Order: sequence, then C-alpha cells, then structure tokens
Amino acid sequence: MEGAGPVSDVRVGIDDLPVRDELRGKSPYGAPQLDVPVRLNTNENPYPLPEPLVERIAERVREAARDLNRYPDRDAVELRTELARYLTRTSGHEVGLAHVWAANGSNEVIQQLLQTFGGPGRTAIGFEPSYSMHGLIARGTGTAWISGPRHDDFTVDVEAAAKAIAEHRPDVVFITTPNNPTGTAVPAETVLALYDAAQAAKPSMVVVDEAYVEFSHGDSLLPLIEGRPNLVVSRTMSKAFGAAGLRLGYLAAHPAVVDAVQLVRLPYHLSAVTQATALAALEHTDTLLKYVDQLKAERDRLVTELRALGYEVTDSDANFVQFGRFDGEGGAHEVWRRILDRGVLVRDNGVPGWLRVTAGTPAENDAFLDAVRELKKEHGA
Amino acid sequence: MEGAGPVSDVRVGIDDLPVRDELRGKSPYGAPQLDVPVRLNTNENPYPLPEPLVERIAERVREAARDLNRYPDRDAVELRTELARYLTRTSGHEVGLAHVWAANGSNEVIQQLLQTFGGPGRTAIGFEPSYSMHGLIARGTGTAWISGPRHDDFTVDVEAAAKAIAEHRPDVVFITTPNNPTGTAVPAETVLALYDAAQAAKPSMVVVDEAYVEFSHGDSLLPLIEGRPNLVVSRTMSKAFGAAGLRLGYLAAHPAVVDAVQLVRLPYHLSAVTQATALAALEHTDTLLKYVDQLKAERDRLVTELRALGYEVTDSDANFVQFGRFDGEGGAHEVWRRILDRGVLVRDNGVPGWLRVTAGTPAENDAFLDAVRELKKEHGA
Repeated sequence: MEGAGPVSDVRVGIDDLPVRDELRGKSPYGAPQLDVPVRLNTNENPYPLPEPLVERIAERVREAARDLNRYPDRDAVELRTELARYLTRTSGHEVGLAHVWAANGSNEVIQQLLQTFGGPGRTAIGFEPSYSMHGLIARGTGTAWISGPRHDDFTVDVEAAAKAIAEHRPDVVFITTPNNPTGTAVPAETVLALYDAAQAAKPSMVVVDEAYVEFSHGDSLLPLIEGRPNLVVSRTMSKAFGAAGLRLGYLAAHPAVVDAVQLVRLPYHLSAVTQATALAALEHTDTLLKYVDQLKAERDRLVTELRALGYEVTDSDANFVQFGRFDGEGGAHEVWRRILDRGVLVRDNGVPGWLRVTAGTPAENDAFLDAVRELKKEHGA
Repeated sequence: MEGAGPVSDVRVGIDDLPVRDELRGKSPYGAPQLDVPVRLNTNENPYPLPEPLVERIAERVREAARDLNRYPDRDAVELRTELARYLTRTSGHEVGLAHVWAANGSNEVIQQLLQTFGGPGRTAIGFEPSYSMHGLIARGTGTAWISGPRHDDFTVDVEAAAKAIAEHRPDVVFITTPNNPTGTAVPAETVLALYDAAQAAKPSMVVVDEAYVEFSHGDSLLPLIEGRPNLVVSRTMSKAFGAAGLRLGYLAAHPAVVDAVQLVRLPYHLSAVTQATALAALEHTDTLLKYVDQLKAERDRLVTELRALGYEVTDSDANFVQFGRFDGEGGAHEVWRRILDRGVLVRDNGVPGWLRVTAGTPAENDAFLDAVRELKKEHGA
C-alpha cells in the first residue's frame, strides 16, 4: 500500500522525469540496513550514550524548543566555540571560533567545500579505495572526479599521487586519514608532500578527512593548518562522540576558509536541536573518549585475532578493520554472505578480496570472531 | 580576539583562496540579526511552542538520544508518513509515504530538486520579486537563473510568464504561492497555465513553493500533483508549525520524484533529533493551527490598519504584509531605518518602494502600527 496513493501512476518512473542525464539508471548510496543481531557494517560506535548525557540532551533540547519558533543561530557561535575548545585540547594546537565551521554531518561539510572550491568546470581527486562519498558528492556538485592511485598495501603511493596531482591539476585533493575502508593513517610527511604538489600544480585546496582520527595510534594532523590556508581538516561527531544519529560534522581551517564556505551554505542550515544536542555531547567529552579507548583496544584485538586465524589484515588506526583476502569462489561477497548467515553484518565495500568489520562491543566482536572461525573450519576461508 | 588564533594570517582573505570565480566579492545571504525589542523581519511565528509540546519534544528526543550512536532512519519513514497524514487531512487530497520527502528546511528540499532537475548546463526561472533563495540555490547548484516578469501589482503576468517559459525553455520553474515577499497567493489556473507552458516548452519540473500556504485565504494546490508527475509542492514546518529553529522542509509529488531526489540527497541527511522533534510537533498539529488562525486575523488587521493609514498594501495570504510605497528621499530603506529607531525591525527585501512586516503577536503588531503612525505624523510617510 505504501506509494499506492491516488496520485501514483506506477507507469511513471525516474527515467520518465526530466532528471539530469548522469542520474539515469543510478541507485541511491547507502549500506544495506538489515535487521541482524550484530551490526558491524557502518562503523557506528556500539556504545549508547551514557544516561546522564541522554538527560542533558533532553534538558538542552527542552530549552532550545522553547525558542523553536525563532530561526537558529545561523553562525552556530556557541557550538563552533566549543568544538574549537575540543580541538585545541585534544590536538594541543590552538584554534578558535573563526577556524571552525559545522554542518549536518561531514558529508555536508564536504559538499560545502566542493561547492566553494570545486563545482562545474573543476576537478577533485581522491586516492582510492577511500571514502566513496568524496567522489559521489563531487559528482553531485558537478565536480569532475579523478580516482588517484594507492600502493597494493593500500598506503598512499606518494610519488604516483604527486604525479597524478601534477598531471591533472585538480582543484580539490582529498586525503582520508585514517583511511576508510582500509583503516591506515596517513603520515604527516605524506600529507605535506601532497599539499606541496597541489600548491605547485594549481594551487588547490587539500581536504584532510579525519573522521576516524580519535581512534588513531598517532596524532591529528590539525596543526598542519598553521600557515597553510589551503589545507582543511574535516571531522565528525558520528564516531568518537558516538553520535551518528546527530549528523554533526565540522572542519578546522584558516578563517578565510570558514568565511568562504559561508558563501554557499544554506542559511540556517544547522537546526537549534542539532546545536543543542551537540553542545550537550561536548560537555561529556571525557566520558565519550573513554569509550574510544575501549574501542581502540577491541580494534587491536580484532587485528591480532584475525591475523592469528591466518587472515591478511590492513594496519588499522580506525574503529574498523579491513581483512582478507578472499580471492576464491564468490570472492569477498560470498564470505560476507556466510558471515551474515551467522547473524553478523560486516561491510563489503567493493574492494576486491577484502571485507571491513567495525569494532563493536567485546561480545559483538566475539560473535564476529566465532563466525569467521567457523568459516575457516568449514570453508578454509 | 575571535579569529585571532595562532593560525590566523589576517592578510589572507577569501579572494586569496582558490574559490570559484562567481563567489569572489560575494557576501553570505541572510537578514541582519539585530537585537531589538520587536523583530518582525524574518516571518517567524511569534508564538513559542506550547509547554506540553516542549515537554513532548524533550521526551521524544530523550528516546532518540538513547539510540544516537546509530545512524538515523535514512528514509525518515515515520516522519514522512506523519507528514503525509497531515497533508491528506488538511488538503483533502490523499497522499502517502511514497509521495513525501523531507530535508533540513525547504532550502535543502529546493537544493535537492535543483541537483536532480537543474544543475550545470540547465536553467531555472522564477517570477521576481520572489523568495530570493530560489535564485541563490540555483546558482549554488550551477543552475543558470532567469528572472521572469510580474505585473506591477506583483501578481503573476500569465501571458508574459508563459512567453518567458516558451522562450527560455527552463528545466525548473518556481512558483511561490503565497508569494514572498509580496504576500499574494497564485490562483490554481495560473499554476496550471504555467505548468502547461513548461511541459510544452521542454518538459520541465514545476516547483510550487507553498511555505506560507497555511496562512492563505484559499486552499493548498497540493491536489494539482494528481496526474502531473512534473509538479512538486514544497512545504515547511518553519512557519505554520512555529518551528523555524527545527529546519524541517518537505515536498509532496509523484513517487518517482521522491525516488529521484534520493539519488542526490546526502545519505542520513536528516538527524534523529530532527526527526524526533518534527514528529512531536506533528502530534500537536491542532494546537499549532489555532495559532495560525490568530495570526491570520492579525495579518488581516495589519492590512486594514495600514490601508486606513493611507499606505499601499499588497493583498496578503501569508503571515506577513508588504506595504509602501516609499518613493521619497532615501526610499524604503530610510523608512526601514526610522521604524528600527522605534524598536521595530521589519524587512527591506530590496523591492524598490516597499517594505515587509511579519504578523507578530497583537502587542508586537501594535508596536509596529504605533511606529508607522508616528512616522506618518512626523514625515508624512
């Protein structure tokens, strides 16, 4: 019955509408949302927010709701100030309100950056496999997308990457660190080499996507924005803050970058309830970072145990682990299905021969490890 | 001190960054946010949400916060179902989940429509003066913008508009009804004539922006989507639901349109707290629509009293009134400033000779009327 209201003429489909040519035959992005006992497929934080934080969110939202008939603070001043305080405290590098911008998820941050610095007639490059939304949002903003190279071990091939930048002269360069879906962090010297290559070629903007940086063995590359106005670090509260449902992404950069994205941001893009909820979560940073420590330990356990089982595992600085290789019959997707049959949902990101598992709670990780152990026994893979 | 952190090099500005050429020299959209006693400038609903609704929002958000570590429902099924129920009930035309899509404010709805049906190499037309974000979002999505004509009394000049559509063959046609900032609703026959013109010319999508329709003397044009898959009605909870701070816009159209915008929407664009808050507000529809009735009466009073004072007033079906004409020294902006001097903020939308005042509470409207009465006495305008 859904969709069968009176205005539905089932003979009319997307391709009968005057949609843009490049959208014809496409299907929407998104991981399958399946109802299984153990969901380790979308890199969510498995720990629900602690109850005192839940109460604080209700309290701050109640307060915000009393003024909900008014537009929200268009510039999200209080929130950006608190995000800057968090970044300063955790990176040791001082930033303030003027260096920080926030939007509905890092996806919207990236969209705004591409509307400002990419767009029609311009190009962006990423080194793949990486976060596939970079390329999808590039296309959604009319930015031509270039898929740059990596080494076979999924680390960035600096020489080949710099060569690709020199050749294509992209307007925007994406570097994801820790990289998704492969998990490994990118060293500062690699980012600097690519930044220099990008400035020599164009100059272009370099976006360092640190969505998972809190889980890294190393430090944030935030301090690199010092003296580099064309370098942007993007972040999210979805992972370390356990708030994927909140959709709060942000960036740190030279204040001129923050001024520039305000030319393309939709006015009042960030709702009063989003701002209130994010502010509540930031009050509980210490508690939330303790969960991060637990997840790092669990992530390391997954790496160790998967390797002990004979799997290849990419070094991980994130809250997920890429493992393989599955080059046999059916490949990675067949293994994905077999793990799912055992009630555990992992992610097939389309990297041939590899799957990605999110670090869950100890019990969830045990369930996953039991499942792959069984597979090893039954199928040898 | 804001913006004076260590990474600020004040010599670097927007124009030193590799921003798109068309952004150079631009400044961000937005009404001035001034701290004055009576703010009648952004068409906000003056009535705070009733306390039982505030409590219900806190309750629903508390519940949502317990699952905030998980991504929100990507398809906002419950919310879209309730929005469809509201539309069915208030328009008498049955729509369901499949006909409704929601996003962060009607601005994001419009952005998604333009990404789907406009974009680079395509054009959109609006009949100006109208909601200026249509043109701004068109430009932000790389869509060429055509400013179409109106009659001198601000109603749509059907003949001239149809001629402009035939000549320019736009991919997207915007019709704002009631129109903002002028206030008058567009008759169904006008919309149908322009729809037919647009189909004959291209065919193109027609977006009927009904942000203020609940305040209209007439009915919603929602039933026109029946049998017209290229017609979209956009709506918002900012005005009638008194929830500008929530940023919840939505559209109703043929299900194929809803499928199509999902090709460009950012995944998980609508946060769990936004969905929870909107659902709470929809539970209180009856109470909120009573405020709408009060505001309609106040709007009519403003029209009557302004006309009695000798002002020209455009017919209003919205929660605001356009009044003028101020063709003397300094024009409308000088009158805007004089009203502001009396503690009342109205809007100068840049329509030469006219200003716009939002219908506030009876006391706010009295303050506004007192201010203009004084001006009449002192300056004759």
